[in-house]
Order: sequence, then C-alpha cells, then structure tokens
Amino acid sequence: MGDVEEKCMKAKAASEIMKNAATSEKNRALLAIAKALRAHSSAILAANKADLAASASLPLSVRKRLELNEKQLASMASGFELIAKFPDPVGQVMKKWKLKNGLRISRVRVPLGVIAFIYESRPNVTAEASSLALKSGNAIVLRGGKEAINSNRALVRTMQSALAASGLPADAVQLIEDTTHEGAAQLMQMRQYVDVLIPRGGAGLIRAVVENAKIPVIETGAGNCHVYVDEGADLKMAECIILNAKLTSPYVCNALEHVLVNEKVAAKLLPSLYDKLLKAGVEVRGCDRTRRILEKARPMNEGELYQEYLDLIIGIKLVGDVRQAIDHINRYGTHHSDTIVTKNKKNAALFASQVDSCCVYVNASTRFTDGYTMGFGGEVGISTQRLHARGPIGLEELTTTKLVIEGTGQVRE
Amino acid sequence: MGDVEEKCMKAKAASEIMKNAATSEKNRALLAIAKALRAHSSAILAANKADLAASASLPLSVRKRLELNEKQLASMASGFELIAKFPDPVGQVMKKWKLKNGLRISRVRVPLGVIAFIYESRPNVTAEASSLALKSGNAIVLRGGKEAINSNRALVRTMQSALAASGLPADAVQLIEDTTHEGAAQLMQMRQYVDVLIPRGGAGLIRAVVENAKIPVIETGAGNCHVYVDEGADLKMAECIILNAKLTSPYVCNALEHVLVNEKVAAKLLPSLYDKLLKAGVEVRGCDRTRRILEKARPMNEGELYQEYLDLIIGIKLVGDVRQAIDHINRYGTHHSDTIVTKNKKNAALFASQVDSCCVYVNASTRFTDGYTMGFGGEVGISTQRLHARGPIGLEELTTTKLVIEGTGQVRE
Repeated sequence: MGDVEEKCMKAKAASEIMKNAATSEKNRALLAIAKALRAHSSAILAANKADLAASASLPLSVRKRLELNEKQLASMASGFELIAKFPDPVGQVMKKWKLKNGLRISRVRVPLGVIAFIYESRPNVTAEASSLALKSGNAIVLRGGKEAINSNRALVRTMQSALAASGLPADAVQLIEDTTHEGAAQLMQMRQYVDVLIPRGGAGLIRAVVENAKIPVIETGAGNCHVYVDEGADLKMAECIILNAKLTSPYVCNALEHVLVNEKVAAKLLPSLYDKLLKAGVEVRGCDRTRRILEKARPMNEGELYQEYLDLIIGIKLVGDVRQAIDHINRYGTHHSDTIVTKNKKNAALFASQVDSCCVYVNASTRFTDGYTMGFGGEVGISTQRLHARGPIGLEELTTTKLVIEGTGQVRE
Repeated sequence: MGDVEEKCMKAKAASEIMKNAATSEKNRALLAIAKALRAHSSAILAANKADLAASASLPLSVRKRLELNEKQLASMASGFELIAKFPDPVGQVMKKWKLKNGLRISRVRVPLGVIAFIYESRPNVTAEASSLALKSGNAIVLRGGKEAINSNRALVRTMQSALAASGLPADAVQLIEDTTHEGAAQLMQMRQYVDVLIPRGGAGLIRAVVENAKIPVIETGAGNCHVYVDEGADLKMAECIILNAKLTSPYVCNALEHVLVNEKVAAKLLPSLYDKLLKAGVEVRGCDRTRRILEKARPMNEGELYQEYLDLIIGIKLVGDVRQAIDHINRYGTHHSDTIVTKNKKNAALFASQVDSCCVYVNASTRFTDGYTMGFGGEVGISTQRLHARGPIGLEELTTTKLVIEGTGQVRE
C-alpha cells in the first residue's frame, strides 16, 4: 500500500470517530491545537524559513504568500479559538415536519466524512481548512504545494499531537508528503476512503482535478469580478467602491477586474476615476466608447473581457442600462462577486436576482467575499460552482444531512 | 454539431429564461402540461403500445415498469397539478444575517440551471422528473432507456407544446433520442451546457456515469435496507414492519433486504416470522445462529450480507446489541434506509445518530423513503451520496443558492 492510500485509509478510520465526537471534545481539541501552535512557534517558523530558503528564486508574490511570522502564527492560533466558539453544525436540525400518518421527519446535519484538500503554498490555509474540517466532525487529507512542505509538516505534526493529547484521533489530519503531480493524481482516485475533494488554486489545478478526479469535487474558482455603476448612482460612492475593490489586494479572487459604466454617467465619473487609478499605478484598459472619454486608456479586445487580471490592471466598458450590465456579467464573468452601485431600488433588485454569481452586491465592495469577513469563521475556499456549496466554504458547507424518521409502528399501504 | 450537443445548447438557452420565470408562469405551464397529457392520452398510450410490442421478449418485470394505462396517465397529469400547488423554492431566503459594518447578507435559492437525467424505462419517471425540474426553474435533458423511446417522445412532445402555449420555452424539456451508450457518453461530456447530471438506475449505470462524467453528478443508489429488532421491542410491531418492508414491493430500492435480530428476542420472534415469510413466497437465508432456531433457513455467506436482492429473498442475522447492529449496517449497507424497532429511547437515539444512511427510521417501515410519500411532491431519485442532496431529490434539491449582500457604500479596510 502506498503512502497516499495508507493516509487516506487512516483518515477514513479517524473520520468514523470524528463523526460521533461531542462538541465539547472537538472544542477541547481546537483549543489544544491553538495552544500547541503557540508553544511550537519557533519550530514552525524554522520550518518555514527552510521553505523560504528553498524558494529564494521564486517570485516575490509566491514568497510573500509562503512566509509566516510571529504575528501570522498567533492569528492562526486564534483562528482555532474562534472556530471553537462557533456553534457546532453537526446535529443541527435544519427542518422538521410531520406526515398525516404521524411520522415525524427531521433533516439533521452530519459530517461529510473525509475531505481531501489540494491547494497551493499558503501555510495559513493549512490551519484554516483543518480548523473548519475538525469542528464540523470531519477528517482532512491535506495536499499543499511543494514550496510549503516543511511548514506543512511542522503544522500537521503540531495539530496531530494536540489532537491525540486531547483524546481525538491524530489521524484526523493527514499530510500527503508527495508534492509531485503523481501524489495529487493518486489522491484523486481514493474514492474508497475520500468523500469529497476540494481543489483551491489556479485554473490549471482546478481543471486537472475536475477532469481526473473519481471523487465528488467542490470546485473553487477564479474571480473576474465586476462593478456596474448605474444611472443616477452616487458617483463618489462608486469611485470609492471601485478603488477599494481594485487596490486593497489586486492579487486575490475577490478583487475587481472590470468596471461597467452606464453611458449616462460615464463622462462625469471616468476622468477623475482615471486619474486616481493612474496615480495608484493601475493600467486602465477601455472599450472604444470609454476611449472617447479617456483617450489615453489602452484599447481592450473582447477576449480581455473574460480575463481575471490578478494584477494592477482594470478594464472599463460602457453599457446602455442595467440589463446590458447583467447580460455582460453573466456572459463574461466567472460567477464570483459582482456589484451594482445604484440609488434605484428596482435596478438593485433586478441585478441581485438576475446576476448569476455566488455573491451579488448592492452598493458595497466585492472584497467582502471571504468566509471570515462574512461571518463563517473562516473558509476552505470560495465555491463558484453550483452543487452543494456556493460562496465561502465554511462549517455548514463541510456537512451533509440525513433524514431521521420517527414512528410508532407505521407501515406503508 | 451533433444532436446531443444541439439539444443541450437549446436547454441551456431555455434555462436562462426559466431561471427568471415567475412562479405564476411556471404554475400556468405545469397546469397546461397536465391538461395536455389528458388531451393527448390516446396518442401517448398508442406510443406506449408500440414500445410494449417492441419489448415483447423482455422479462415481465421490465414490461410492467414500461406499461402505461389510463389510470397511470391520469396520475401523471395530477402529478403536474400537485407540483403546481407546491411553494416555489426559487427566491426563498434560507438565512439572513447582518455584519457589524451594516452589510445585510441573505442566502437565496436559485435554480441549478440545466439538469441532465439518465434513467431507465419507466415513462412516469419522465413526467415526474420534468415537473420537478420545471417548477424549480430549471431546464431538463432527458435520456431514458431505449425500451421507452416512443412513450418518451410522445410525452416530451406533449410537454413541449404545452410549455410553448403557456409562454415558457419549449426547449426547457429535451429528449436525447439516441438511446445507445454513445448517446449517454456524449451527454456526460456536455460540461459547457449541463450543470448537473443525475443518473437513476442499476449499479452499472451509476458506475459508468461516475467514472465517465465530466459534469458534477448527484448519485442515486441501491438500497440494501435493514430492520434491527432491539431487545425489549414490540415483536408484533417488528413482524408487521418486516413483512411490510419486504412484501409490499420487493423490487424497489427501499424494500427490506436484511433483518438484524437481537439475540435475546430471536427465539421468540423468528419462528412465527419465518412461517409468514415462507407463506408469502420469500426465501429465507440465515446466519449460523439464526439457523439454530430456523433449521430450514438457507445458509448465508458474508458476501450476501452486502447484497441488495431486489427479490423475494430475505437474510437474517443475530446480533448482540444495538452497537453491533449499527456497525453492521454502516459496514454492509448502502446508506439508504434502515430501521430500528425498539421501546428503548436511548437505543433509538443512538441508532438515529450513528447509522450513516440518508434515511434512518425508528419504529417504521423502510418503504416510506420516497419523495411523494415524504411530502416532497415527487422525486427525481433517492440520493444515497453525501454532496448537495441526500434522500429524495425534490424541488429544493434541484436548486442551489447565492448570497445577496446589500450595503450603503461599505468598503473593506
């Protein structure tokens, strides 16, 4: 039996215990992990230093995401404490009804089982995903990027010993140490042991998982996010939302990529917005009609409208009305996060109901799409697909349900 | 473009209209379909006769499932009327919360989009699945078994013309007329147009879909269902439930296959139960300890414990206590429907919480696992897997959700 199969098998056995663990046992384990992360911070930071040294030739953006410091480690630990305070989704009764024959039916939340998580090289994702998986009564098999292997080993070892010390199975958190494609490919076949596979990362990773996995997948996706500025909108608010959504973190999936501007407000909004974007170092691209107002904007072709730039680039396009904006977003977008800035309640309602994205905003920045910020405690990723989970994948999204039917001897006619 | 691709593309375009259709429009269409089914009953029954003639050499059980009569057609039509009366899941607010910064978040139900449904040869399934898909704002691509092709053509034509006459797109219901494996295989690749694939049928069909589909799948599954008779149970009730669960329809997935009997009540329960099963024509198989009580029962090996007989066969095994029964069911069962017969509240609660099946019963027949009976209005199938839907797949299970976030200009710090 290979390493991947053995770890999945161990996770499956651990998940049988996790499924029935009491809330108090799970919370005790989460607090023990928080404590252990603090106690072993120097070992974890040393492991992270080794990862950074091995990644010296990689781009700064990769190294930034890989790097851990005291403060981030402390916030990792408080993440576990926060999740311990959240209500346990397991055992929650979502719905109850009674049939005419007296049968009482309840839909009850239960854990998914074993979650396999394939992701890139941010060690804090290792901790966040594990805290959510454990609290929701699951076991988790982690397969992070190769750059973070030492950090992940140190983190997983810490979590495992804290689990064991608090009476829950250490095997509930597993790390696949084979960080080659082969390791991931093997994991995608483990249907016997793994209940759901969650990939988080670039489009190539997601595609590889969707095409090769023999296990049900919850896809997380790219964000080609839009802000539509409606006729009669508060243009100060629009500018503020656009700058916030583009500039606060241009390299993440909830960052703004394309602005759609109602043609009636374009001449008033665009010149001052353009100056501010330029000053912030953003390259502005525009459709032909935009470039009649912003002559220096770089031309934009149709293919670019589909793009998630993940960079200091923004595309601007003029539209005739809210319906054109909705059609554009549903056609070119990635169903992630899209905003309307408007004072018109009817247009706001139309946009909210017809834009087919996991998060649809009225008068707010797209940057709020995040499990922690939205009150989920954290997230394993943002699901932009339709099955099972949509939006941040938090505690409830890591559960399934069963129907419990209580009778007094009823039989079917 | 091939026929399969063209139909999926048309379904996708229709789904964009269905998504935003008002409840009243959908209900009007459902009632129009009911009326049209009644009006065209002779054409539909003639098409069904052609199917039956072509299937003359097939087993009686297949022909029985294929056959339509006036009464069944009338109940098909009333099925559409029943679904028209159900609340529309689309637009339902499942949850609402407010963040400290004033953002108000709602989780709202929205349609899945395009549902591809691969199933066998029961024409009433064609109607039931379509009624649920349309009411929940979806388009459906049907690929039924070859034996029912004429019936399905007549049914789909009737539904399409009623849809068009009531102002909704006829293309919202599509029939793949290529009933070869090739047709199904093509459908499983239509990721660009199809949002979810639901297979319903034998284990071979489900496996083929899971292994080959490039589209998210909701699996429906076989039912190796159990009744456990606890120490101190009402043995009259136990016998009544066992006979009902085995005999009322032995060929369906919620029929009983294996009885687990607490060793303390076996000698009292089994002899009279055995006589009644025998009288009803059931072959009784037993574990070694069962055969010490029922000497004439046929021996049963371990492999048989995994089997869904779907026949007049029952397996009986003695167990020491409720925990052994739970372990047995989780190991040998198919996570479908399992019952405990008990007077002990603690054992009932333990069984309900630890048996990992989509439907867990206390003191009732497993035969109630059915969308219509449980109050879902109908079902596309019974999901025994963990993602998205578990148990009967009804209206709510054919939807997904989105988050609508309303602000007053909030931006992220």
